[in-house]
Amino acid sequence: MAEAAMAAGAPRASRLDRRKARTHQALIDAAVRLIAEGRGERASIQEITEEADIGFGSFYNHFESKGQLFQAASGQVLERWGQMADDASAGIADPAERLAVGLRLSGRLAWSHPDIARFLTGAGLGALDTPSGLAPRALRDIRTGQAASRFSFPDADIALSAVAGGLLGLLWVHQRHPGRIDETTVDRLSEALLRLLGLPGPEAARLVAMSPPPRDTW
Amino acid sequence: MAEAAMAAGAPRASRLDRRKARTHQALIDAAVRLIAEGRGERASIQEITEEADIGFGSFYNHFESKGQLFQAASGQVLERWGQMADDASAGIADPAERLAVGLRLSGRLAWSHPDIARFLTGAGLGALDTPSGLAPRALRDIRTGQAASRFSFPDADIALSAVAGGLLGLLWVHQRHPGRIDETTVDRLSEALLRLLGLPGPEAARLVAMSPPPRDTW
Repeated sequence: MAEAAMAAGAPRASRLDRRKARTHQALIDAAVRLIAEGRGERASIQEITEEADIGFGSFYNHFESKGQLFQAASGQVLERWGQMADDASAGIADPAERLAVGLRLSGRLAWSHPDIARFLTGAGLGALDTPSGLAPRALRDIRTGQAASRFSFPDADIALSAVAGGLLGLLWVHQRHPGRIDETTVDRLSEALLRLLGLPGPEAARLVAMSPPPRDTW
Repeated sequence: MAEAAMAAGAPRASRLDRRKARTHQALIDAAVRLIAEGRGERASIQEITEEADIGFGSFYNHFESKGQLFQAASGQVLERWGQMADDASAGIADPAERLAVGLRLSGRLAWSHPDIARFLTGAGLGALDTPSGLAPRALRDIRTGQAASRFSFPDADIALSAVAGGLLGLLWVHQRHPGRIDETTVDRLSEALLRLLGLPGPEAARLVAMSPPPRDTW
């Protein structure tokens, strides 16, 4: 009898779960769009639920606060990006080469994943504070590269913010003037950012002249 | 008689003019603070006049639109910055050295002129679109440096946005963690940004090892 009740209840619970999951994702997607538009945490919960096309009251069934929602949204987008970078640089041991691959892939987001690119320019350097995405991976590669005397720039945090700022600048120019940025531009900037880190010019050029990150990994 | 009336009227008109000028500047200062807080053009006119502590109705006596106010506010702050850079690099003909001086001065804004630094991080790369400030001056120096084969990086617009992004990254780290940035950090980043532009490492180091921009010019 109890089993029959559970069996009868199961599909209902599952439909409810699916609806809950859809509402949850609709809120996350709305937060991602608001961050991409630069409205981020300044949007009210009313604006968020309208953007997600759900009832105002549903918000608190899913998130305790706007901060919690925006953190979940950032984490989800940045983790997609970080995962792509991991896939593209799998098996590469040299931190400078890993970083080259990550930067070349990230500049190409402008047209390969415009949603992520818009999110990044909307979030700005604040995205560096999230423990997801390329930032923590790049910081690890910068530190390993410093320890191996591959990068001469001494301050890893400043190096990371400068590299991230340069990359955001590129994505930002692409949004204003898409025609100005192509694969060559992305690779030239990646090379320049490796020089910024203190890699000698010819070595930076060599790393960027290698095959581009295989497209099927991201 | 007419002269007496004018003489009597003059101080009144002048008081009114002074009050108008104060209200005008209060609106500009409010806009600068809102941009620094990252609220910029998303603030309503109501919020702007509250921030300026003036009546809502006065706004349109001074500006036709929010856009016009924000443009005036940006122009005023950025022009202070640009004027400092001009003063500090007066008499320097080499575009790479001019840029070195401009960058070293701009990183020092973090503590020498925190109001300008906060404005820049609040405005983000959008400030590049304003025909004031360091951006147009840096773009001119980058182009002159390319023409003189001093900088090998070929795309002046991308170079400018990467350099600006790197500088914003530094100012942003200073706002989060003031203790991490000092004069040495600023000079190291300036040197790294000159390498990014394609200046050979030893030459970038030489330019940044010169006397810092004289403090009394900015």
